[in-house]
Amino acid sequence: MSPRSLNFYFDYISPYAYFSWRKIHTLCERYDIVLNAHPVVFGKLLDHWGQLGPAEVPPKKTALYKYCDRYAKLHGFEFNPPACHPYNPLPALRLSLQKVSGAEQHAVISAIFEAGWSKGADLSCRDTLAGILDNLGLDSVAMLAAIERADIKALLQEETSQAISCDVFGVPAFIIDDELFWGNDQLEHIELYLQGNDPLDPERVEAMLARHRGIDRKTFLKRGTGTD
Amino acid sequence: MSPRSLNFYFDYISPYAYFSWRKIHTLCERYDIVLNAHPVVFGKLLDHWGQLGPAEVPPKKTALYKYCDRYAKLHGFEFNPPACHPYNPLPALRLSLQKVSGAEQHAVISAIFEAGWSKGADLSCRDTLAGILDNLGLDSVAMLAAIERADIKALLQEETSQAISCDVFGVPAFIIDDELFWGNDQLEHIELYLQGNDPLDPERVEAMLARHRGIDRKTFLKRGTGTD
Repeated sequence: MSPRSLNFYFDYISPYAYFSWRKIHTLCERYDIVLNAHPVVFGKLLDHWGQLGPAEVPPKKTALYKYCDRYAKLHGFEFNPPACHPYNPLPALRLSLQKVSGAEQHAVISAIFEAGWSKGADLSCRDTLAGILDNLGLDSVAMLAAIERADIKALLQEETSQAISCDVFGVPAFIIDDELFWGNDQLEHIELYLQGNDPLDPERVEAMLARHRGIDRKTFLKRGTGTD
Repeated sequence: MSPRSLNFYFDYISPYAYFSWRKIHTLCERYDIVLNAHPVVFGKLLDHWGQLGPAEVPPKKTALYKYCDRYAKLHGFEFNPPACHPYNPLPALRLSLQKVSGAEQHAVISAIFEAGWSKGADLSCRDTLAGILDNLGLDSVAMLAAIERADIKALLQEETSQAISCDVFGVPAFIIDDELFWGNDQLEHIELYLQGNDPLDPERVEAMLARHRGIDRKTFLKRGTGTD
C-alpha cells in the first residue's frame, strides 16, 4: 500500500502559508504522511472566485500584520514581511516547482518563505532569489534560466488550475484523501483527521449545506458565483 | 475613572461571531471590562470594502461549515446552522439594538445566536423571533413593532456606518481603546492586550505597513480600493 499523502497549496504572498509550512513537516512526519508541496498563484485563485486578498482591503492588511507580529512573538520567531507587498511572486513560485528544484524542493520553499516573512527580503527580486539558492549550494544560474522556459511557466499555471478544480479558494490549503482544510488555524483539525479522530459528521454537514439560500446580495448575484 | 470598555461588532450571519460571543463575556468579566454590543449589517461591510462573504464562495462555505462542526464538537456545544443561509438578518439585528432590547440586550443576542447556530432556526422569520423573545419573558409584540420605526432602522444603519468609519471590515470585530481585533481566533491576543501583555510592537508594525506595494492585480486596481 502506498503511504498517505498531504497536498499543501501555497503562495509566498501569504504569511499564513509560511506559518503553517513551519509546522506541517513535523505533523506529516508524526503520522508518516508524504508531503506534496504545490506552489499556486493566489491572485489567480482570487480572480477565479471573485474574491479580494487580505492585502487588498487596507484595514485588513493592518489587522493581518498586527496579528502576524503577535503570533510570531508568541511562537518564538521573527516576523519581518517582504520589502514590498503585494509583489510579483511568479519567479519564486516557479523556482519552487519540483520540476525545477527537484530533491531540494522543500529546502528551497523553506528558505524563500523565511527570507520573505522573517527577514524582510524582496521576493520579487531575482538577485535576492539567486542569493537564497546560492546559500543552499544550488545552481542558481541554471534554476533561474529554467523558470524562463515555457513548459515551466505552463506547469505553474497547471498547478493553479488543478488546485481550483479541487476547490482550493485560498492559501494555505491542505488536501488529504479528498478532504480540504484551509488556513493556519486548522492544523489542530488536520491532526485529528490524520489520527482517525476527526470529529466531523460528514453526512450531517452535507444536509446542513443542502439547506436553501434565503437572500443574496445584489453584488454577489451580479458576479454570478451564486449558483451553488 | 470610567471603566474600560470593549466594543463588539457582530451580525447573526456569522457563526464565528456566535463562537466569540460565547466567550467574550467571561473575558470581559475577568478584566472588569464593559461589553458594548454593536449589531452591524455584514453585507454592508462587504459592499463597502468590495469583498465577498464566506457564504458567497461555494467551496468556502463548505469548508466553513465543516470547520464549525468540528469546532463545536471540540468545544462541547451543538452546531446547527440557520434553516436558510444567507438570510435577511435585519429584523434580528434591529431587535438587538440596545434602544430596542434595553437592559435585556445581551440576553436577546445570546438567545438569537443560539437559536440560529445551535438550533437551526430560521432567523429571518418574525414568528421565530417572536418565540425567542417570548421565551425570555419579553414583550415581543411591542419589540417587533418598534423595529418597524424609521428611527430604529436608521439606528442600525448608523451603527454600521460607525463601524466602517472605525475600519471594521468583518465580523466579529472587537475594538478596545483604539485597537481593532478581528475574528474568533484572536481571543488569545485580546486577552493578552487586556492583561497589558500585548506582544505587539506598534511602531515596528507601522514601519512594516509603510513598505511600498509592489504589484497589484488589475481587478483590485479597477475596484479602486488600492489607495492605501
